[in-house]
Amino acid sequence: MKKVAIIMGSDSDLPVVKAAWDELKRLGIPCEAHVMSAHRTPAQAAEFSANARKNGFGVIIAAAGMAAHLAGAIAANTTLPVIGIPVKGGAMDGLDALLSTVMMPSGIPVATVALNGAKNAAILAAQMLAIEDAQLAEKLDAARETMAKEVAAKDQALQQKLAE
Amino acid sequence: MKKVAIIMGSDSDLPVVKAAWDELKRLGIPCEAHVMSAHRTPAQAAEFSANARKNGFGVIIAAAGMAAHLAGAIAANTTLPVIGIPVKGGAMDGLDALLSTVMMPSGIPVATVALNGAKNAAILAAQMLAIEDAQLAEKLDAARETMAKEVAAKDQALQQKLAE
Amino acid sequence: MKKVAIIMGSDSDLPVVKAAWDELKRLGIPCEAHVMSAHRTPAQAAEFSANARKNGFGVIIAAAGMAAHLAGAIAANTTLPVIGIPVKGGAMDGLDALLSTVMMPSGIPVATVALNGAKNAAILAAQMLAIEDAQLAEKLDAARETMAKEVAAKDQALQQKLAE
Amino acid sequence: MKKVAIIMGSDSDLPVVKAAWDELKRLGIPCEAHVMSAHRTPAQAAEFSANARKNGFGVIIAAAGMAAHLAGAIAANTTLPVIGIPVKGGAMDGLDALLSTVMMPSGIPVATVALNGAKNAAILAAQMLAIEDAQLAEKLDAARETMAKEVAAKDQALQQKLAE
Amino acid sequence: MKKVAIIMGSDSDLPVVKAAWDELKRLGIPCEAHVMSAHRTPAQAAEFSANARKNGFGVIIAAAGMAAHLAGAIAANTTLPVIGIPVKGGAMDGLDALLSTVMMPSGIPVATVALNGAKNAAILAAQMLAIEDAQLAEKLDAARETMAKEVAAKDQALQQKLAE
Amino acid sequence: MKKVAIIMGSDSDLPVVKAAWDELKRLGIPCEAHVMSAHRTPAQAAEFSANARKNGFGVIIAAAGMAAHLAGAIAANTTLPVIGIPVKGGAMDGLDALLSTVMMPSGIPVATVALNGAKNAAILAAQMLAIEDAQLAEKLDAARETMAKEVAAKDQALQQKLAE
Amino acid sequence: MKKVAIIMGSDSDLPVVKAAWDELKRLGIPCEAHVMSAHRTPAQAAEFSANARKNGFGVIIAAAGMAAHLAGAIAANTTLPVIGIPVKGGAMDGLDALLSTVMMPSGIPVATVALNGAKNAAILAAQMLAIEDAQLAEKLDAARETMAKEVAAKDQALQQKLAE
Amino acid sequence: MKKVAIIMGSDSDLPVVKAAWDELKRLGIPCEAHVMSAHRTPAQAAEFSANARKNGFGVIIAAAGMAAHLAGAIAANTTLPVIGIPVKGGAMDGLDALLSTVMMPSGIPVATVALNGAKNAAILAAQMLAIEDAQLAEKLDAARETMAKEVAAKDQALQQKLAE
Repeated sequence: MKKVAIIMGSDSDLPVVKAAWDELKRLGIPCEAHVMSAHRTPAQAAEFSANARKNGFGVIIAAAGMAAHLAGAIAANTTLPVIGIPVKGGAMDGLDALLSTVMMPSGIPVATVALNGAKNAAILAAQMLAIEDAQLAEKLDAARETMAKEVAAKDQALQQKLAE
Repeated sequence: MKKVAIIMGSDSDLPVVKAAWDELKRLGIPCEAHVMSAHRTPAQAAEFSANARKNGFGVIIAAAGMAAHLAGAIAANTTLPVIGIPVKGGAMDGLDALLSTVMMPSGIPVATVALNGAKNAAILAAQMLAIEDAQLAEKLDAARETMAKEVAAKDQALQQKLAE
Repeated sequence: MKKVAIIMGSDSDLPVVKAAWDELKRLGIPCEAHVMSAHRTPAQAAEFSANARKNGFGVIIAAAGMAAHLAGAIAANTTLPVIGIPVKGGAMDGLDALLSTVMMPSGIPVATVALNGAKNAAILAAQMLAIEDAQLAEKLDAARETMAKEVAAKDQALQQKLAE
Repeated sequence: MKKVAIIMGSDSDLPVVKAAWDELKRLGIPCEAHVMSAHRTPAQAAEFSANARKNGFGVIIAAAGMAAHLAGAIAANTTLPVIGIPVKGGAMDGLDALLSTVMMPSGIPVATVALNGAKNAAILAAQMLAIEDAQLAEKLDAARETMAKEVAAKDQALQQKLAE
Repeated sequence: MKKVAIIMGSDSDLPVVKAAWDELKRLGIPCEAHVMSAHRTPAQAAEFSANARKNGFGVIIAAAGMAAHLAGAIAANTTLPVIGIPVKGGAMDGLDALLSTVMMPSGIPVATVALNGAKNAAILAAQMLAIEDAQLAEKLDAARETMAKEVAAKDQALQQKLAE
Repeated sequence: MKKVAIIMGSDSDLPVVKAAWDELKRLGIPCEAHVMSAHRTPAQAAEFSANARKNGFGVIIAAAGMAAHLAGAIAANTTLPVIGIPVKGGAMDGLDALLSTVMMPSGIPVATVALNGAKNAAILAAQMLAIEDAQLAEKLDAARETMAKEVAAKDQALQQKLAE
Repeated sequence: MKKVAIIMGSDSDLPVVKAAWDELKRLGIPCEAHVMSAHRTPAQAAEFSANARKNGFGVIIAAAGMAAHLAGAIAANTTLPVIGIPVKGGAMDGLDALLSTVMMPSGIPVATVALNGAKNAAILAAQMLAIEDAQLAEKLDAARETMAKEVAAKDQALQQKLAE
Repeated sequence: MKKVAIIMGSDSDLPVVKAAWDELKRLGIPCEAHVMSAHRTPAQAAEFSANARKNGFGVIIAAAGMAAHLAGAIAANTTLPVIGIPVKGGAMDGLDALLSTVMMPSGIPVATVALNGAKNAAILAAQMLAIEDAQLAEKLDAARETMAKEVAAKDQALQQKLAE
């Protein structure tokens, strides 16, 4: 199976990004995580991206805050699908990161998920890999069913709570 | 090759969405386009999504404006990757569509592109399909090189213009 | 009397939504509350809504946060009046929920109240039921008078405080 | 049947508000429309609202722009359900009107629809009246089916267009 | 001297509004403070405003949060200058209050100060009364000089701190 | 009677500001208008403000767009009441001007009116001068009554239009 | 004298950026202009920036719209001062460009001017070069005086216009 | 070497601004810091700015919050480059300060850095001084390399952490 790379702009993003790592592990998808900065280590970020496909990666997830250029800088150097996680925080509290990540110019898309949406980024990466991987697709379907059952269980619990 | 579905909430979105159709055709990717509404034809949208994988689709692109629920409503019914195009227009001029599309809850991601980013949605769909399709990946790389050459040509043209 | 349904997207919304439940109980209006998600249990939400009128409901209140599709997804499956409570919280702090709830397309209205406006949602539901129920209308008028008296009492208290 | 009142803050709102009038007429619901201003004729607006229930009204729709106090000012003087239409325009382009209409304090709800959502305001008023009026409910259901058929027809037309 | 009225929509606004009361007292300007609500006690608010000039008031200060109609509702019933203090807080954190207070329609101005700008509201009221009151004008000029000296003193203190 | 000064940051603001001039003339209030810039002619703006009271002015109205410092710069140099008109336009379309004008620090208030609210600025200036001028207060009351009658006439016209 | 480079992300930015070119020419500052894209030609942009100082440049001006990464991408590859011009336009109308340009992480500043502030970018570049160039500083002072005289002339013209 | 001045609108800004002072010291750049207010001590701010160049300053950094006029007021009185630090805080939480600082009119630029971007303001000032100071430029390049190494070290640490 192709690997998924998780790139974060700063190690301070790890508490947010960890949810992506955990979800990928849970789904049995091989992955690597790196700290690389579009602004502080631009050459490393460019080189990693340019070589990602031939190094066995299928999807790159990039997480950054503020003027969040990381996902775009990576997307500029590869034609692999790049998923951007805008990280909430900093002085504008995430609107800057969201717009900096999603409003990419024509030709260079970034698949943007919600602010701090690290778990969803991992699921989205898995969905991409599952296009041609029926077994992984089944895992994703099973997770959905589990989720639906959890909601139903919560509804049950609510009925008991309100009946008290 | 897996097909790409393009779903638009209203046929008034066609002028925006057409760029996705054209790009997919240009890349030789089989696709279908439909008008379906999360609010006016919820059953059809749910049914289409639930059957999309077994009907040969690999990716679904959904475009909608205002309280843009379409991409999310589709994602709720499939584990295929769903790409959301928030459509500019309506009384809030697109901020509503962007937030309604991207801020999905944990478990149900939507890969959001820029407001009116139809061409990028198509390229992103192609990138997803190209994870396991080296030939398509080469086409995408070639398109990037063409794009870079166009920028270089425009720089040349600028030099002449400024030298006059 | 017709019943009021309160649907919340997640049981984490209960602390907010509880105020609607309490107000309906206080006004003697029969009600049910459920956890159902537009994204995690779309089929259940659709089925509940489609059958709500024949199951004796007169109004549905729906509360959700972030890309808050729940009220709209319910409104898409019933012609009962649907009241939407956008829930503050999540990374965009409620603006996303407000716009996702209120900016509905033509044909499918959602009666939106303020962010976290659960008590007002209950009063609004009561006002709808009171159109043809003079006794309930009187209860609402009485509550208004009580409210006015409370304000007058607070003004009195202020005078004493400032006079000290 | 109870009447619906449509109050607009200025006759310049008529082009927007007209869609509510037309929809109510189409549904056979008796209605009146008035120009009244929360700021320029506060006494008239208060008096009209205070007497609306006994004058045979079941719902009041209020449309205003900018610091849109009209719906709130009416709601302050009646316990009938009040539907607010924030009108786009003026220097803040509607965000002011939306927030001024929807963010009502506890105790005095305004059922807010989308910016310029006049048609939806009328449908919402009809839904309220239809809680106890099975015939009107059927009309609303029929209109929904028509709407769904129109979407299906547009999808058909799209297939032909793309096949050309 | 004409009196200044301070009206607050809720006694929960008192911690903010207190600064206006204190500043008016400090400047020796007679004042009254009241809790009155545009939505919960609309008649009282209208009556107070309509009689304010003949009851000896020269300026009215009104403080409210969320869909802050109070200042506008007062201004609708008097031609005395009305100063609006939008109160931060509630689910939109003050932007709603600011826009609801400042974006008044032509003919009915509200002199809006900053969010929570209670002290400035008092100073502005004093400036209005000082147009024809040279003694009060001198007090205001003296306060300005004191303020300037305080800044100079802080600059001095900074020099010492940085020199350490 | 004290004079009113109207200061605009650029003569391009004249089409907006003209409404203030016209309203002051209509009310018989003596006034002067000047082009002065907080950034391009800071010394002149400071000097004019510092001498305004002794030169017979009672109120200063200042209109500016973008990073609208003009009203604040004038308020920094006088204790006369200063009314700020944020001018819509420029690349942020007025939100910058509104916040730059209204969010003044403690001690230096600016009485802010709506974006482009030039007529209201003039009425507000008149209201300030009318605190001690019963004749002017009567004029303002009369204008209010005229305004109310105009609304009533528009309501009449609407009835005829809808009856056709 | 050191040269100034003007880099634009797309030749469609030229109508905005031209004002920077013209102002630099007017001030006699040697300059070059190029079309280079952070996303379409990332390697060229990085190389140009990395060599800019040794190629005789003293300041780089970068203009881009939407998720405007260009100024940041250049700043990541040089320690020359980089001036960012966020370009208005695209679907978010400039707020995205402003935040993407200004909210840079610690260590990599971008000197951001107003949306479309091309002329100011050129003046700012000149101010930087004038720190050690007294002759250029004099030119800038002279331009300021001219500007002040133009404002005074406009004030004169206004007096005549209002006197008519 | 030319000196850098750091001006803050209030001594409450010191915790933010201190980072600029520390960075300038670290780079060996002579600097002064002052508390001066555009609104409370406008004459001092104007005088300081007007004399800054002849008093040996090369760059002025100005930090202020809310309706942040300080940087603009300084820029209005000098042709030295002025760097603006919008300070987060106050009731609008920094958006007011950002727009008030960056949206300057044509002719009077302010080089704006991120909200609370004090360290970057110092680096930017150093970059300006380094245009003609090769030794300082080398220091800046060395700091960049250190920064890149720190990122690489964090990536190493992450690998170990994830391998555990």
